[in-house]
Amino acid sequence: MNVTVRGRMRPYRTVTFDAPRNTVSLIEQRLLPHEFKVIATRDFRETAAAIRDMIVRGAGAIGATAAYGLAQGVQAYRGRDLEKFTAHVATVCRTLKAARPTAVDPVNAMHAVRRAMVAGTTVAEQQSLAVAAAEAFATEDVRHCEALGRHGAKLIQNGMRVLTHCNAGWLAFVDVGSATAPLYAAQAAGKKFHVFCDETRPRSQGATLTAWELAQQKVSHQIIADNAAGHLMQRGEIDLVIVGSDRTLGRTGEVANKIGTYTKAVLAQRHGIPFFVAIPLSTIDWELRSGFDIPIEEREAGEVLGAWGILSLPNAKLRAPQSLRRAYVRVANPTSDARNPGFDVTPAELITGIITPAGIFHPGELWRRRRELGFVG
Amino acid sequence: MNVTVRGRMRPYRTVTFDAPRNTVSLIEQRLLPHEFKVIATRDFRETAAAIRDMIVRGAGAIGATAAYGLAQGVQAYRGRDLEKFTAHVATVCRTLKAARPTAVDPVNAMHAVRRAMVAGTTVAEQQSLAVAAAEAFATEDVRHCEALGRHGAKLIQNGMRVLTHCNAGWLAFVDVGSATAPLYAAQAAGKKFHVFCDETRPRSQGATLTAWELAQQKVSHQIIADNAAGHLMQRGEIDLVIVGSDRTLGRTGEVANKIGTYTKAVLAQRHGIPFFVAIPLSTIDWELRSGFDIPIEEREAGEVLGAWGILSLPNAKLRAPQSLRRAYVRVANPTSDARNPGFDVTPAELITGIITPAGIFHPGELWRRRRELGFVG
Repeated sequence: MNVTVRGRMRPYRTVTFDAPRNTVSLIEQRLLPHEFKVIATRDFRETAAAIRDMIVRGAGAIGATAAYGLAQGVQAYRGRDLEKFTAHVATVCRTLKAARPTAVDPVNAMHAVRRAMVAGTTVAEQQSLAVAAAEAFATEDVRHCEALGRHGAKLIQNGMRVLTHCNAGWLAFVDVGSATAPLYAAQAAGKKFHVFCDETRPRSQGATLTAWELAQQKVSHQIIADNAAGHLMQRGEIDLVIVGSDRTLGRTGEVANKIGTYTKAVLAQRHGIPFFVAIPLSTIDWELRSGFDIPIEEREAGEVLGAWGILSLPNAKLRAPQSLRRAYVRVANPTSDARNPGFDVTPAELITGIITPAGIFHPGELWRRRRELGFVG
Repeated sequence: MNVTVRGRMRPYRTVTFDAPRNTVSLIEQRLLPHEFKVIATRDFRETAAAIRDMIVRGAGAIGATAAYGLAQGVQAYRGRDLEKFTAHVATVCRTLKAARPTAVDPVNAMHAVRRAMVAGTTVAEQQSLAVAAAEAFATEDVRHCEALGRHGAKLIQNGMRVLTHCNAGWLAFVDVGSATAPLYAAQAAGKKFHVFCDETRPRSQGATLTAWELAQQKVSHQIIADNAAGHLMQRGEIDLVIVGSDRTLGRTGEVANKIGTYTKAVLAQRHGIPFFVAIPLSTIDWELRSGFDIPIEEREAGEVLGAWGILSLPNAKLRAPQSLRRAYVRVANPTSDARNPGFDVTPAELITGIITPAGIFHPGELWRRRRELGFVG
């Protein structure tokens, strides 16, 4: 997608690989929305550190980063001994996997690269196959997001007001994003519409990342408090809801996503507003049989009890030390604690449709269509 | 209610009047929850400034403050000339009314004091009648809150988990509060229960004021993001919802309250959870015929785009200047704007009951019972 840096608009992907220089370039997401910076890692250990330290986040984005990191580690090998080379590849994979041990995308991404490598009979052949496979993996992520964007764009008509929750944007993928993909495709088709970004407390990904993305793409948008969507729906100011998903159950059509998603689905149903979930195929869980079996992570209370942001000085003459610019303020009563569930589960009955790279499906239809949705088993 | 200051628990009212010293004492609410301080105003102009500068806020609390401020101004008059005295009283009323021109409670409170004064035939008599009437007005506020607390406490059973939104606590009244009154009454009756306080973005009155009040009264509670209540209801962790109201329509039973209230009512209905609104009689609007006619204030975008709190220094060795301790951080993307409706309207069909000083009523019942609810007309 496009980013304006020093007045010039340029296309960026969240992660790219420079094969001749053997570097992985990443948007430093921890600085957003207040600063845009691209960093380059020089070896697979630095790439693993970038995943671990949250420079890059989001399922699709860390998958592609791991694929590129593996290609980077593989390319760096000097020698012709296939056995020693294979041991080196295993070390690279272990290092990258350990950077985010709970995530499944890096593992799947590295499997894809290693599967491609076995066709090579020399170190050099395997090296070039790895680079090509990593590139193919990243390209597939983009193609899938573009495909679901094409399907989803049909839902957006001129003049619509669209509500989103959290960030399932291009920053979470290699490019385009999931929940944002229909918006960008509709914009490219010349449609005019307006987006309301839920702030998405406690981590505010809507106010920070989604709003930043939409501003870069020049999509008309406003941030609202999570409390405000119900009122706007009641007054007829929202026409469509599109969200992403962290896990969608293929057997039931239930959708786990950022806390607050369920609330928006309940409100949308009351007001007869279509509620869509946009997902890449990798998000579908074909195993679990009930949304109540999805473990809901309880995150640290500090997220709810305060907020991170850029310090605004009340007096321009006062200068805070540089290290204070990004600051955390404690908002809540200091002697109170918080509950902080990170995700919730939306039942299929509240979901109008699931936007996938293979088309838009009713949530109850996923299991029947499992073969075309990539189910293997 | 009780406040612990330097380890000692003491009862405080939000506003009190010391007649011999002719001072009005007020909790400095702008410093809460991070600092507890009581200030005393020495004349009616200082009292008016305290209302204007938001040292005191909340319908019941500013009503009583205006009543006391009028008594204070009246008492300060030196002389026996009734005509000059009456002109002085008019000046006092004008000054206090101008401190919060849109509020109706100060006006009603001062009417009550002036009505009582007309029975006096000398300056001295009118002065002592004014003091007594102001005290009676404040006492009535407390009695009304206590009465609705007694009615509401019957709804709370041992082990219940109660959700509140925003602050309709004793800080907004002279004492006890509206939405909190049933909680305090149930606690006094020895019942054990747990309260979830919605953070209530964008101004966070739940995380700051309600949580502070509950902590002072030693009521078990936790703050949650506004996004989390739907999930907790879905998992069976909320048994009852009690909120306050800024305006309740006597003809339709519709309730205007802090933005996000409507969303909680929709969620409660879906989950079969009782949803109650606690109100003093002064909140009832007997004129308006539709909730859609209630003007919804659009507040400044900055509230949504950032947060106020106490600066947490990342390094204990770093010391911010004192003036930086209370700080605003910009959370959102700096090039994005926000919509910020301050209130929403909940239809009667979603409300289980309205808790009033005269008893608990179905919202559709208010108009039929208007005489016992203080309707004059």
